[in-house]
Amino acid sequence: MRIGVDIGGTNIVTGLVKDGKILDRVSFKAQEARRDNSIVEKIIENIKELCKKNSITPEQVESIGIGVPGAVNYIEGTVIECVNLGMKDVPLRSELRKELGDVTVLVENDANAATVCEHLYGTMKGTRNSMLVTIGTGVGGGFILNGELFSGKSGRVAEIGHITVGEGFYECGCGQRGCLETFASATAIVKYAKKLIKDGESSLLEQRIAKGIIETKDVFDCAKEGDKVCLSAIQRFVKYLSIGIANFINVLDLELVAIGGGVCNGHELFFDDLVKEINKRTLFKASGNCKVCIAELKNDAGIIGAAMIN
Amino acid sequence: MRIGVDIGGTNIVTGLVKDGKILDRVSFKAQEARRDNSIVEKIIENIKELCKKNSITPEQVESIGIGVPGAVNYIEGTVIECVNLGMKDVPLRSELRKELGDVTVLVENDANAATVCEHLYGTMKGTRNSMLVTIGTGVGGGFILNGELFSGKSGRVAEIGHITVGEGFYECGCGQRGCLETFASATAIVKYAKKLIKDGESSLLEQRIAKGIIETKDVFDCAKEGDKVCLSAIQRFVKYLSIGIANFINVLDLELVAIGGGVCNGHELFFDDLVKEINKRTLFKASGNCKVCIAELKNDAGIIGAAMIN
Repeated sequence: MRIGVDIGGTNIVTGLVKDGKILDRVSFKAQEARRDNSIVEKIIENIKELCKKNSITPEQVESIGIGVPGAVNYIEGTVIECVNLGMKDVPLRSELRKELGDVTVLVENDANAATVCEHLYGTMKGTRNSMLVTIGTGVGGGFILNGELFSGKSGRVAEIGHITVGEGFYECGCGQRGCLETFASATAIVKYAKKLIKDGESSLLEQRIAKGIIETKDVFDCAKEGDKVCLSAIQRFVKYLSIGIANFINVLDLELVAIGGGVCNGHELFFDDLVKEINKRTLFKASGNCKVCIAELKNDAGIIGAAMIN
Repeated sequence: MRIGVDIGGTNIVTGLVKDGKILDRVSFKAQEARRDNSIVEKIIENIKELCKKNSITPEQVESIGIGVPGAVNYIEGTVIECVNLGMKDVPLRSELRKELGDVTVLVENDANAATVCEHLYGTMKGTRNSMLVTIGTGVGGGFILNGELFSGKSGRVAEIGHITVGEGFYECGCGQRGCLETFASATAIVKYAKKLIKDGESSLLEQRIAKGIIETKDVFDCAKEGDKVCLSAIQRFVKYLSIGIANFINVLDLELVAIGGGVCNGHELFFDDLVKEINKRTLFKASGNCKVCIAELKNDAGIIGAAMIN
């Protein structure tokens, strides 16, 4: 039995995991806890509560894995920085061990945790060299290399969203220009559609903009109705996402790439073109094209993946 | 004792290697052998000759490693394609075993072989996650990940030179646009300087162009005299090389990047700026900047690296 903690921007959920399934879970609201600076304290309370409810002690649990939406140091078990929750230099492992006794605490980036889950129970199962790309507000992901989660010299996240793939028309949150994330995220799709409208093109999207904030779903809806601006925005997304993914296939000779995250809700609008573009950009196909698929990631991937970190 | 075969465009050299040193070597001219379609036959002859001279049999050698300047399938021990020598689908391992008996034959890309040598005996020694980038006519290289040469699903080369990093003004040999190689190779430096001259800028380089073919050395020479066109060409090279290298540091969290290849002869003209640009583009520096250095690769790295392939 293991425990997985999924630190999300809205809820922080702690689950008891066995054989890839969540037996029980408890949670608290992230932003409230952020306000009283009690995130770590509440995680510890949740773990104690979960153990008590299930008649075990924390020390009887094989390991406690924590998935963090930010930069972590896996080796030291610390959160380097998690901007959304105002966490900086938090020694999670030692704080938990102080309260819970001799427990194994593993701290990982949430995209890496999702990669672990997808590799154990999803489309990446059985692969030795593969990649998960999650596309939402930003672009993240993780790698399985030589059959294991790859996490570099300090166990940090693979910053897939911040590889430079072009010139770009707006500055990325990281301060650079041309990051994959500024071309191939949900944010980028919306920003580019708005840019085209600002540049004078007319679009069905304008009515929706007049009513309030638009999302990728609006762009996808209008694209389905044949809207040119929205189709262009998707086409650009496909082009740069294929460049980003092909870069990794060509360098790491991957056998499979799984695509997850919010934009996959509109996958029928881009998936076939994306596969075509990726294949076009892949060198040396003697051993066959790299397989590209939509990830099976479920809502619980964050908890299960965190629990299964090794 | 091991044998390393370095398949070069000019010479194909077979060396007897022990403790990182070449004890003896034999060679033949590559292009002559290409003409009579006798490359594999001559490699076998060279191995027999080398063994005879040193009073051993091929079967007594621990392994025979072959470094190929092209795409290989490490697992099957075949050359997929080596354009410069007209080799395509050559089952090197089985051909050698047919003539030499029960020997271990390992076929690797030459950049990977050089990476192995640099990792065992050069600047990459002791690293767990590092990269060799070799910059000459093209851009190649190899990765050490989790302490071992990484070679993907079929043991092919890491096509570092063909990651897309921008738009580019000429088409790459691979048929794509925007490959790192079209910005950050010796070829790209010369092409860009010539482009600036064609676009109307004046340069010291023009006198040299009038006399014949110019090389990176000419650009470096004129840059030392303060020539603006040549300085611009080097600046562009630095910018895109830093983008390419930072992409890998950010994703693979590397501890060291070693730069080798012909352009390093002019390293005093670009190295300091390159390191600055790479650091500027590197995210999350909590565990310190990635070290960047000039590789120690010697002329014999191809032979020694090939011999040391595992």
